[in-house]
Amino acid sequence: MKLHFSAGSPFVRKCMVVAHELGIADRFELLPAAAHPVKRDARIIESNPLGQVPTLTCDDGTVLYDSRVICEYLDAEFGGALFPAAGPARWRCLTEVALADGMTGAALLARYETAARPAPTQWPDWIDGQLAKVHSGIAWLDHAAPGFGDRVDIGTIAFGCALGYVDFRFPQVDWRAASPATAQWFARFSERPSMQQTVPKG
Amino acid sequence: MKLHFSAGSPFVRKCMVVAHELGIADRFELLPAAAHPVKRDARIIESNPLGQVPTLTCDDGTVLYDSRVICEYLDAEFGGALFPAAGPARWRCLTEVALADGMTGAALLARYETAARPAPTQWPDWIDGQLAKVHSGIAWLDHAAPGFGDRVDIGTIAFGCALGYVDFRFPQVDWRAASPATAQWFARFSERPSMQQTVPKG
Repeated sequence: MKLHFSAGSPFVRKCMVVAHELGIADRFELLPAAAHPVKRDARIIESNPLGQVPTLTCDDGTVLYDSRVICEYLDAEFGGALFPAAGPARWRCLTEVALADGMTGAALLARYETAARPAPTQWPDWIDGQLAKVHSGIAWLDHAAPGFGDRVDIGTIAFGCALGYVDFRFPQVDWRAASPATAQWFARFSERPSMQQTVPKG
Repeated sequence: MKLHFSAGSPFVRKCMVVAHELGIADRFELLPAAAHPVKRDARIIESNPLGQVPTLTCDDGTVLYDSRVICEYLDAEFGGALFPAAGPARWRCLTEVALADGMTGAALLARYETAARPAPTQWPDWIDGQLAKVHSGIAWLDHAAPGFGDRVDIGTIAFGCALGYVDFRFPQVDWRAASPATAQWFARFSERPSMQQTVPKG
């Protein structure tokens, strides 16, 4: 399998954490990619019109994206149990993924505001609005995290990648003081080899 | 069931098209919502920290989001067959949803650029980059649409809502001339009652 990859992408990380949990991370050939919202990467667009990572090309040529689809595919194809089967547990878990992905997407948009835009076109209210989603999500997590126990599934993996991305790109955001339960859960979850082997770089 | 609703949201529309196809659209109580990336709507945040529509509250109080999760839940709960079961057909169909949602999200970001931002902070390159995703997606569709036949599933529904949103917010974008197969498929798909009853307004 070939994976359009970026070592700084939180959505790529989610797929790689899943792959490590399933014991199949060494089956990927990682393809270099430079996804960007304005300077689009033609190498990715050949496979995925959105020009985004992660994009997975299976051995039979089938192309899969985005991260949610890739994660569910890997779990089903390689005998995992990271996605609950249909029923209340599945809907709850997928809603957690949607929250985590929404927090991650908001953090990415906040990051683009300063990393991609010319200074005169930066709008602080946009950054505040996006980071407000992150803070609301962490506040929700602080009620939920004490109930996570030792859960390792697509919901907790997505939260781990979301918080890891906030720390990576917004180290000045001190969310731990107001959210001790989340901080405690994240510290423990981050010790997993799958998280250690996918720490963002870039 | 209660649904945080906006008549202009393409992601709400996707859920409503699914509901109409399943014959359950009359079971929703529609809650007013004014989701916005900067002026966040506290009424939604009570249920969904992202403050986004669609957000579904089930009769037992369970809260589900985002649109992908709601659509899959409705399909499973109310006996639909809009989501293929695990296997190649599922991964192909979910990747189509990811493409359609990516096109829709890109169009939304292009729209926010002029609808939400103060004029001095608008950046034309951003709009061009986002609409380039839409155009790449439509070019892909023009190869795929001739093979859609009479498919009515979450993939084709998502494409219908994506194209409908482009027409709604970017009527000046003339995509039909270069993409006749997509135009022909979309014209036929748009005749479905589920599409007719959910035409965007705003």
